[in-house]
Amino acid sequence: MITVALAKGALLKDSVSRLANAGLDFSTLLDSSNRQLMISSSCGRAKALLVRNGDVPVYVAYGQAQLGIVGYDVLKEQDMPVANLLDLGFGGCRMSVAVQATSGYKRGLDLPPHCRVASKFTNCARTYFEDLDLPVELVHLTGSVELGPITGMAEAIVDLVASGRTLKENGLIEIEELFHSTARLIGNPLSLRLDKGILQEIIAEVKSQKSVANFSS
Amino acid sequence: MITVALAKGALLKDSVSRLANAGLDFSTLLDSSNRQLMISSSCGRAKALLVRNGDVPVYVAYGQAQLGIVGYDVLKEQDMPVANLLDLGFGGCRMSVAVQATSGYKRGLDLPPHCRVASKFTNCARTYFEDLDLPVELVHLTGSVELGPITGMAEAIVDLVASGRTLKENGLIEIEELFHSTARLIGNPLSLRLDKGILQEIIAEVKSQKSVANFSS
Repeated sequence: MITVALAKGALLKDSVSRLANAGLDFSTLLDSSNRQLMISSSCGRAKALLVRNGDVPVYVAYGQAQLGIVGYDVLKEQDMPVANLLDLGFGGCRMSVAVQATSGYKRGLDLPPHCRVASKFTNCARTYFEDLDLPVELVHLTGSVELGPITGMAEAIVDLVASGRTLKENGLIEIEELFHSTARLIGNPLSLRLDKGILQEIIAEVKSQKSVANFSS
Repeated sequence: MITVALAKGALLKDSVSRLANAGLDFSTLLDSSNRQLMISSSCGRAKALLVRNGDVPVYVAYGQAQLGIVGYDVLKEQDMPVANLLDLGFGGCRMSVAVQATSGYKRGLDLPPHCRVASKFTNCARTYFEDLDLPVELVHLTGSVELGPITGMAEAIVDLVASGRTLKENGLIEIEELFHSTARLIGNPLSLRLDKGILQEIIAEVKSQKSVANFSS
Protein backbone atom coordinates (compact mmCIF):
# COMPACT_ATOMS: atom_id res chain seq x y z
CA MET A 1 0.00 0.00 0.00
CA ILE A 2 1.47 3.33 -0.98
CA THR A 3 0.58 6.71 0.53
CA VAL A 4 0.35 10.01 -1.36
CA ALA A 5 0.48 13.36 0.50
CA LEU A 6 -1.78 15.99 -1.05
CA ALA A 7 -2.01 19.69 -0.27
CA LYS A 8 -5.26 21.30 0.86
CA GLY A 9 -6.33 24.32 -1.13
CA ALA A 10 -5.72 25.49 -4.68
CA LEU A 11 -3.81 22.43 -5.94
CA LEU A 12 -6.19 19.76 -4.60
CA LYS A 13 -8.68 19.50 -7.46
CA ASP A 14 -6.04 19.09 -10.17
CA SER A 15 -3.97 16.76 -7.96
CA VAL A 16 -6.95 14.43 -7.45
CA SER A 17 -7.74 14.54 -11.16
CA ARG A 18 -4.15 13.66 -12.19
CA LEU A 19 -4.06 10.73 -9.77
CA ALA A 20 -7.49 9.56 -11.01
CA ASN A 21 -6.04 9.46 -14.53
CA ALA A 22 -3.35 7.20 -13.09
CA GLY A 23 -5.98 4.89 -11.60
CA LEU A 24 -6.05 6.21 -8.02
CA ASP A 25 -9.48 7.57 -7.09
CA PHE A 26 -9.34 10.05 -4.18
CA SER A 27 -12.40 12.06 -5.27
CA THR A 28 -13.85 11.80 -1.72
CA LEU A 29 -11.33 14.51 -0.77
CA LEU A 30 -13.15 16.96 -3.06
CA ASP A 31 -16.45 16.41 -1.25
CA SER A 32 -16.97 19.59 0.80
CA SER A 33 -18.51 17.58 3.65
CA ASN A 34 -15.39 15.40 3.97
CA ARG A 35 -13.59 15.83 7.30
CA GLN A 36 -11.22 12.86 6.97
CA LEU A 37 -7.54 13.65 6.55
CA MET A 38 -6.59 10.11 5.56
CA ILE A 39 -8.59 8.12 3.01
CA SER A 40 -8.11 5.00 0.89
CA SER A 41 -8.47 5.03 -2.89
CA SER A 42 -11.49 3.12 -4.15
CA CYS A 43 -9.18 0.47 -5.69
CA GLY A 44 -7.53 -0.11 -2.30
CA ARG A 45 -4.04 0.26 -3.82
CA ALA A 46 -3.22 3.54 -2.09
CA LYS A 47 -3.99 5.98 0.71
CA ALA A 48 -4.01 9.78 0.58
CA LEU A 49 -3.02 12.16 3.39
CA LEU A 50 -4.66 15.59 3.15
CA VAL A 51 -2.30 18.12 4.76
CA ARG A 52 -1.27 21.76 4.58
CA ASN A 53 0.85 22.82 1.62
CA GLY A 54 3.99 23.18 3.71
CA ASP A 55 3.58 19.76 5.35
CA VAL A 56 3.57 17.71 2.10
CA PRO A 57 7.42 17.63 1.81
CA VAL A 58 7.67 16.74 5.53
CA TYR A 59 5.49 13.62 5.22
CA VAL A 60 7.35 12.61 2.04
CA ALA A 61 10.81 13.30 3.49
CA TYR A 62 10.07 11.18 6.59
CA GLY A 63 8.66 8.39 4.40
CA GLN A 64 5.10 8.45 5.81
CA ALA A 65 4.09 9.20 2.23
CA GLN A 66 6.09 7.72 -0.65
CA LEU A 67 4.73 10.30 -3.11
CA GLY A 68 3.32 13.81 -2.80
CA ILE A 69 2.05 16.69 -4.92
CA VAL A 70 3.07 20.21 -3.92
CA GLY A 71 4.01 23.57 -5.43
CA TYR A 72 7.60 24.23 -6.47
CA ASP A 73 7.50 27.37 -4.26
CA VAL A 74 7.17 25.18 -1.16
CA LEU A 75 9.96 22.84 -2.30
CA LYS A 76 12.26 25.79 -2.93
CA GLU A 77 11.44 27.45 0.42
CA GLN A 78 11.85 24.33 2.55
CA ASP A 79 14.69 22.48 0.86
CA MET A 80 13.65 19.10 2.31
CA PRO A 81 15.37 15.87 1.15
CA VAL A 82 12.75 14.74 -1.39
CA ALA A 83 13.05 13.80 -5.08
CA ASN A 84 11.45 16.29 -7.48
CA LEU A 85 10.06 13.74 -9.98
CA LEU A 86 7.79 15.55 -12.39
CA ASP A 87 6.51 18.99 -13.32
CA LEU A 88 2.73 18.53 -13.45
CA GLY A 89 2.15 21.86 -15.17
CA PHE A 90 -0.89 23.04 -13.21
CA GLY A 91 -1.05 25.58 -10.36
CA GLY A 92 1.11 28.05 -12.27
CA CYS A 93 2.17 31.20 -10.41
CA ARG A 94 5.32 33.23 -9.92
CA MET A 95 7.41 34.25 -6.91
CA SER A 96 7.78 37.98 -7.28
CA VAL A 97 9.13 41.11 -5.62
CA ALA A 98 6.37 43.73 -5.33
CA VAL A 99 6.39 47.32 -4.10
CA GLN A 100 3.87 50.12 -3.76
CA ALA A 101 2.97 51.45 -7.22
CA THR A 102 3.77 54.98 -5.96
CA SER A 103 7.24 54.03 -4.66
CA GLY A 104 9.15 54.61 -7.89
CA TYR A 105 11.20 51.39 -7.50
CA LYS A 106 11.49 49.67 -10.90
CA ARG A 107 13.72 46.68 -10.05
CA GLY A 108 15.15 44.85 -7.05
CA LEU A 109 18.41 46.77 -7.09
CA ASP A 110 16.52 50.09 -6.75
CA LEU A 111 15.54 49.16 -3.20
CA PRO A 112 17.52 51.00 -0.52
CA PRO A 113 20.14 48.87 1.30
CA HIS A 114 18.92 47.62 4.68
CA CYS A 115 15.29 48.22 3.73
CA ARG A 116 12.67 45.82 5.09
CA VAL A 117 11.17 43.06 2.97
CA ALA A 118 8.14 41.12 4.27
CA SER A 119 7.50 37.57 3.09
CA LYS A 120 6.08 34.16 3.88
CA PHE A 121 9.03 32.82 1.83
CA THR A 122 11.99 34.29 3.68
CA ASN A 123 14.42 31.59 2.49
CA CYS A 124 13.59 32.33 -1.18
CA ALA A 125 13.82 36.07 -0.49
CA ARG A 126 17.18 35.66 1.32
CA THR A 127 18.72 33.77 -1.62
CA TYR A 128 17.46 36.36 -4.10
CA PHE A 129 18.79 39.41 -2.22
CA GLU A 130 22.09 37.67 -1.41
CA ASP A 131 22.54 36.99 -5.14
CA LEU A 132 21.87 40.71 -5.78
CA ASP A 133 24.40 41.50 -3.03
CA LEU A 134 21.78 43.83 -1.53
CA PRO A 135 21.54 43.66 2.29
CA VAL A 136 17.89 43.72 3.44
CA GLU A 137 16.08 43.04 6.70
CA LEU A 138 13.63 40.17 6.19
CA VAL A 139 10.39 40.19 8.18
CA HIS A 140 8.66 36.82 8.31
CA LEU A 141 4.87 37.01 8.08
CA THR A 142 2.44 34.10 7.89
CA GLY A 143 -0.31 35.77 5.83
CA SER A 144 -1.65 38.95 4.16
CA VAL A 145 1.88 40.01 3.26
CA GLU A 146 0.49 42.94 1.25
CA LEU A 147 -0.14 44.72 4.58
CA GLY A 148 3.64 45.08 5.00
CA PRO A 149 4.08 47.98 2.53
CA ILE A 150 0.59 49.41 3.24
CA THR A 151 1.34 49.85 6.95
CA GLY A 152 4.83 51.15 6.22
CA MET A 153 6.52 48.18 7.90
CA ALA A 154 8.29 47.04 4.71
CA GLU A 155 9.43 48.69 1.48
CA ALA A 156 8.82 45.50 -0.51
CA ILE A 157 7.36 42.02 -0.33
CA VAL A 158 8.34 38.69 -1.87
CA ASP A 159 5.19 36.69 -2.50
CA LEU A 160 3.42 34.25 -4.81
CA VAL A 161 1.41 35.95 -7.54
CA ALA A 162 -1.16 34.12 -9.67
CA SER A 163 -3.68 36.54 -11.21
CA GLY A 164 -2.15 39.65 -9.63
CA ARG A 165 -5.56 40.73 -8.34
CA THR A 166 -4.54 40.94 -4.66
CA LEU A 167 -1.53 43.11 -5.52
CA LYS A 168 -3.66 45.44 -7.66
CA GLU A 169 -6.35 45.76 -5.00
CA ASN A 170 -3.66 46.85 -2.55
CA GLY A 171 -1.88 49.34 -4.83
CA LEU A 172 1.17 47.12 -5.34
CA ILE A 173 3.10 46.27 -8.53
CA GLU A 174 5.55 43.47 -9.37
CA ILE A 175 9.07 44.62 -10.20
CA GLU A 176 10.99 41.32 -10.39
CA GLU A 177 10.20 37.64 -10.83
CA LEU A 178 12.32 35.24 -8.75
CA PHE A 179 11.01 32.05 -10.40
CA HIS A 180 7.94 30.43 -11.91
CA SER A 181 6.18 27.77 -9.84
CA THR A 182 3.97 24.81 -10.79
CA ALA A 183 2.77 21.68 -9.00
CA ARG A 184 5.37 18.91 -8.73
CA LEU A 185 5.17 15.19 -8.09
CA ILE A 186 7.73 14.43 -5.37
CA GLY A 187 8.96 11.17 -3.89
CA ASN A 188 10.75 9.77 -0.86
CA PRO A 189 14.30 8.94 -2.04
CA LEU A 190 14.64 5.71 -0.05
CA SER A 191 11.20 4.43 -1.13
CA LEU A 192 12.17 5.11 -4.74
CA ARG A 193 15.42 3.15 -4.36
CA LEU A 194 13.64 0.19 -2.71
CA ASP A 195 10.65 0.32 -5.09
CA LYS A 196 9.73 -3.01 -6.69
CA GLY A 197 7.91 -1.31 -9.53
CA ILE A 198 4.69 -0.03 -7.96
CA LEU A 199 5.88 3.56 -7.53
CA GLN A 200 7.50 3.63 -10.96
CA GLU A 201 4.25 2.39 -12.48
CA ILE A 202 2.24 5.21 -10.87
CA ILE A 203 4.86 7.80 -11.81
CA ALA A 204 4.83 6.54 -15.41
CA GLU A 205 1.01 6.70 -15.54
CA VAL A 206 0.98 10.26 -14.17
CA LYS A 207 3.75 11.17 -16.62
CA SER A 208 2.02 9.68 -19.68
CA GLN A 209 -1.16 11.60 -18.84
CA LYS A 210 0.95 14.72 -18.88
CA SER A 211 2.22 14.01 -22.40
CA VAL A 212 -1.32 13.39 -23.62
CA ALA A 213 -2.46 16.66 -22.03
CA ASN A 214 0.44 18.53 -23.61
CA PHE A 215 -0.22 16.95 -27.00
CA SER A 216 -3.89 17.87 -27.03
CA SER A 217 -3.38 21.44 -25.88
CA MET B 1 -4.10 57.82 15.88
CA ILE B 2 -3.18 54.49 17.43
CA THR B 3 -3.24 51.11 15.71
CA VAL B 4 -4.27 47.80 17.30
CA ALA B 5 -3.29 44.46 15.70
CA LEU B 6 -5.97 41.80 16.08
CA ALA B 7 -5.79 38.09 15.29
CA LYS B 8 -8.16 36.46 12.80
CA GLY B 9 -9.97 33.42 14.12
CA ALA B 10 -11.03 32.25 17.55
CA LEU B 11 -9.92 35.32 19.54
CA LEU B 12 -11.46 37.97 17.26
CA LYS B 13 -14.99 38.21 18.69
CA ASP B 14 -13.85 38.64 22.31
CA SER B 15 -11.03 41.00 21.25
CA VAL B 16 -13.49 43.30 19.45
CA SER B 17 -15.86 43.16 22.40
CA ARG B 18 -13.15 44.08 24.95
CA LEU B 19 -11.99 47.03 22.82
CA ALA B 20 -15.63 48.14 22.37
CA ASN B 21 -15.94 48.26 26.16
CA ALA B 22 -12.88 50.55 26.10
CA GLY B 23 -14.60 52.85 23.58
CA LEU B 24 -13.03 51.52 20.35
CA ASP B 25 -15.65 50.13 17.98
CA PHE B 26 -14.18 47.65 15.44
CA SER B 27 -17.39 45.62 15.04
CA THR B 28 -17.10 45.87 11.23
CA LEU B 29 -14.39 43.17 11.52
CA LEU B 30 -17.03 40.71 12.76
CA ASP B 31 -19.15 41.22 9.65
CA SER B 32 -18.67 38.05 7.61
CA SER B 33 -18.78 40.05 4.36
CA ASN B 34 -15.87 42.27 5.48
CA ARG B 35 -12.74 41.84 3.32
CA GLN B 36 -10.82 44.85 4.66
CA LEU B 37 -7.70 44.09 6.70
CA MET B 38 -7.33 47.65 8.01
CA ILE B 39 -10.31 49.60 9.38
CA SER B 40 -10.87 52.72 11.47
CA SER B 41 -12.89 52.69 14.66
CA SER B 42 -16.20 54.57 14.42
CA CYS B 43 -14.84 57.24 16.84
CA GLY B 44 -11.85 57.85 14.55
CA ARG B 45 -9.41 57.48 17.48
CA ALA B 46 -7.87 54.23 16.32
CA LYS B 47 -7.27 51.78 13.49
CA ALA B 48 -7.29 47.99 13.60
CA LEU B 49 -5.12 45.62 11.56
CA LEU B 50 -6.65 42.18 11.03
CA VAL B 51 -3.80 39.69 10.67
CA ARG B 52 -2.92 36.05 11.29
CA ASN B 53 -2.36 35.01 14.88
CA GLY B 54 1.39 34.69 14.45
CA ASP B 55 1.72 38.11 12.79
CA VAL B 56 0.23 40.13 15.68
CA PRO B 57 3.53 40.26 17.68
CA VAL B 58 5.42 41.16 14.46
CA TYR B 59 3.31 44.26 13.75
CA VAL B 60 3.53 45.28 17.42
CA ALA B 61 7.29 44.64 17.69
CA TYR B 62 7.99 46.74 14.58
CA GLY B 63 5.71 49.53 15.90
CA GLN B 64 3.19 49.44 13.04
CA ALA B 65 0.66 48.66 15.78
CA GLN B 66 1.13 50.13 19.25
CA LEU B 67 -1.17 47.55 20.83
CA GLY B 68 -2.25 44.02 19.93
CA ILE B 69 -4.30 41.12 21.25
CA VAL B 70 -2.90 37.63 20.83
CA GLY B 71 -2.72 34.28 22.61
CA TYR B 72 0.03 33.64 25.16
CA ASP B 73 0.96 30.51 23.14
CA VAL B 74 2.05 32.69 20.21
CA LEU B 75 4.02 35.06 22.48
CA LYS B 76 5.80 32.13 24.09
CA GLU B 77 6.60 30.47 20.74
CA GLN B 78 7.90 33.60 19.01
CA ASP B 79 9.66 35.47 21.82
CA MET B 80 9.35 38.86 20.04
CA PRO B 81 10.33 42.09 21.85
CA VAL B 82 6.84 43.20 22.93
CA ALA B 83 5.41 44.13 26.34
CA ASN B 84 2.93 41.63 27.79
CA LEU B 85 0.53 44.15 29.38
CA LEU B 86 -2.56 42.32 30.49
CA ASP B 87 -4.07 38.85 30.76
CA LEU B 88 -7.52 39.28 29.16
CA GLY B 89 -8.78 35.95 30.46
CA PHE B 90 -10.58 34.73 27.35
CA GLY B 91 -9.42 32.20 24.73
CA GLY B 92 -8.33 29.75 27.41
CA CYS B 93 -6.52 26.63 26.25
CA ARG B 94 -3.47 24.61 27.22
CA MET B 95 -0.25 23.63 25.48
CA SER B 96 -0.03 19.88 25.99
CA VAL B 97 1.94 16.79 25.12
CA ALA B 98 -0.35 14.14 23.63
CA VAL B 99 0.25 10.56 22.55
CA GLN B 100 -1.81 7.73 21.13
CA ALA B 101 -4.16 6.38 23.80
CA THR B 102 -2.85 2.87 23.05
CA SER B 103 0.83 3.82 23.45
CA GLY B 104 1.08 3.28 27.19
CA TYR B 105 3.05 6.51 27.75
CA LYS B 106 1.75 8.24 30.89
CA ARG B 107 4.10 11.26 31.14
CA GLY B 108 6.70 13.11 29.09
CA LEU B 109 9.63 11.21 30.62
CA ASP B 110 8.12 7.88 29.48
CA LEU B 111 8.84 8.81 25.85
CA PRO B 112 11.84 6.98 24.37
CA PRO B 113 14.98 9.14 23.92
CA HIS B 114 15.38 10.40 20.32
CA CYS B 115 11.72 9.75 19.55
CA ARG B 116 9.98 12.12 17.18
CA VAL B 117 7.65 14.87 18.38
CA ALA B 118 5.52 16.78 15.85
CA SER B 119 4.38 20.33 16.60
CA LYS B 120 3.45 23.74 15.25
CA PHE B 121 5.14 25.08 18.41
CA THR B 122 8.63 23.64 18.08
CA ASN B 123 10.23 26.36 20.24
CA CYS B 124 7.86 25.62 23.14
CA ALA B 125 8.41 21.89 22.63
CA ARG B 126 12.22 22.31 22.53
CA THR B 127 12.25 24.22 25.84
CA TYR B 128 10.03 21.60 27.48
CA PHE B 129 12.08 18.59 26.42
CA GLU B 130 15.39 20.35 27.19
CA ASP B 131 14.11 21.03 30.71
CA LEU B 132 13.25 17.32 30.98
CA ASP B 133 16.76 16.54 29.66
CA LEU B 134 15.11 14.19 27.16
CA PRO B 135 16.60 14.39 23.64
CA VAL B 136 13.87 14.28 20.98
CA GLU B 137 13.72 14.95 17.25
CA LEU B 138 11.27 17.80 16.61
CA VAL B 139 9.26 17.74 13.36
CA HIS B 140 7.75 21.09 12.46
CA LEU B 141 4.26 20.88 10.97
CA THR B 142 1.98 23.77 10.05
CA GLY B 143 -1.40 22.07 10.64
CA SER B 144 -3.29 18.87 11.54
CA VAL B 145 -0.54 17.83 13.93
CA GLU B 146 -2.66 14.89 15.11
CA LEU B 147 -1.72 13.10 11.86
CA GLY B 148 1.85 12.80 13.19
CA PRO B 149 1.17 9.89 15.59
CA ILE B 150 -1.61 8.42 13.39
CA THR B 151 0.73 8.00 10.42
CA GLY B 152 3.53 6.73 12.64
CA MET B 153 5.76 9.74 11.89
CA ALA B 154 5.90 10.87 15.53
CA GLU B 155 5.50 9.22 18.94
CA ALA B 156 4.01 12.39 20.43
CA ILE B 157 2.76 15.87 19.61
CA VAL B 158 2.91 19.19 21.41
CA ASP B 159 -0.21 21.18 20.57
CA LEU B 160 -2.85 23.58 21.82
CA VAL B 161 -5.86 21.86 23.35
CA ALA B 162 -9.12 23.65 24.09
CA SER B 163 -12.04 21.20 24.35
CA GLY B 164 -9.93 18.12 23.62
CA ARG B 165 -12.40 16.98 20.93
CA THR B 166 -9.82 16.82 18.11
CA LEU B 167 -7.50 14.66 20.24
CA LYS B 168 -10.34 12.33 21.21
CA GLU B 169 -11.56 11.97 17.61
CA ASN B 170 -8.03 10.92 16.66
CA GLY B 171 -7.45 8.44 19.49
CA LEU B 172 -4.96 10.68 21.31
CA ILE B 173 -4.69 11.55 25.01
CA GLU B 174 -2.92 14.37 26.88
CA ILE B 175 -0.13 13.25 29.18
CA GLU B 176 1.46 16.58 30.22
CA GLU B 177 0.53 20.25 30.25
CA LEU B 178 3.34 22.69 29.34
CA PHE B 179 1.39 25.85 30.21
CA HIS B 180 -2.05 27.42 30.17
CA SER B 181 -2.71 30.08 27.53
CA THR B 182 -5.15 33.01 27.38
CA ALA B 183 -5.44 36.14 25.23
CA ARG B 184 -3.03 38.93 26.15
CA LEU B 185 -2.96 42.66 25.48
CA ILE B 186 0.53 43.44 24.22
CA GLY B 187 2.27 46.72 23.44
CA ASN B 188 5.23 48.15 21.54
CA PRO B 189 7.86 49.00 24.19
CA LEU B 190 9.03 52.26 22.55
CA SER B 191 5.45 53.50 21.97
CA LEU B 192 4.69 52.80 25.63
CA ARG B 193 7.76 54.81 26.76
CA LEU B 194 6.87 57.77 24.48
CA ASP B 195 3.13 57.59 25.25
CA LYS B 196 1.55 60.90 26.25
CA GLY B 197 -1.36 59.18 27.97
CA ILE B 198 -3.48 57.87 25.11
CA LEU B 199 -2.20 54.28 25.27
CA GLN B 200 -2.29 54.22 29.07
CA GLU B 201 -5.89 55.42 28.95
CA ILE B 202 -6.93 52.59 26.62
CA ILE B 203 -4.97 50.02 28.64
CA ALA B 204 -6.64 51.28 31.83
CA GLU B 205 -10.09 51.09 30.22
CA VAL B 206 -9.48 47.55 29.00
CA LYS B 207 -8.11 46.64 32.44
CA SER B 208 -11.04 48.11 34.39
CA GLN B 209 -13.46 46.17 32.19
CA LYS B 210 -11.58 43.09 33.21
CA SER B 211 -12.08 43.80 36.91
CA VAL B 212 -15.81 44.38 36.34
CA ALA B 213 -16.02 41.10 34.43
CA ASN B 214 -14.16 39.25 37.15
CA PHE B 215 -16.31 40.85 39.84
CA SER B 216 -19.55 39.88 38.14
CA SER B 217 -18.51 36.31 37.43
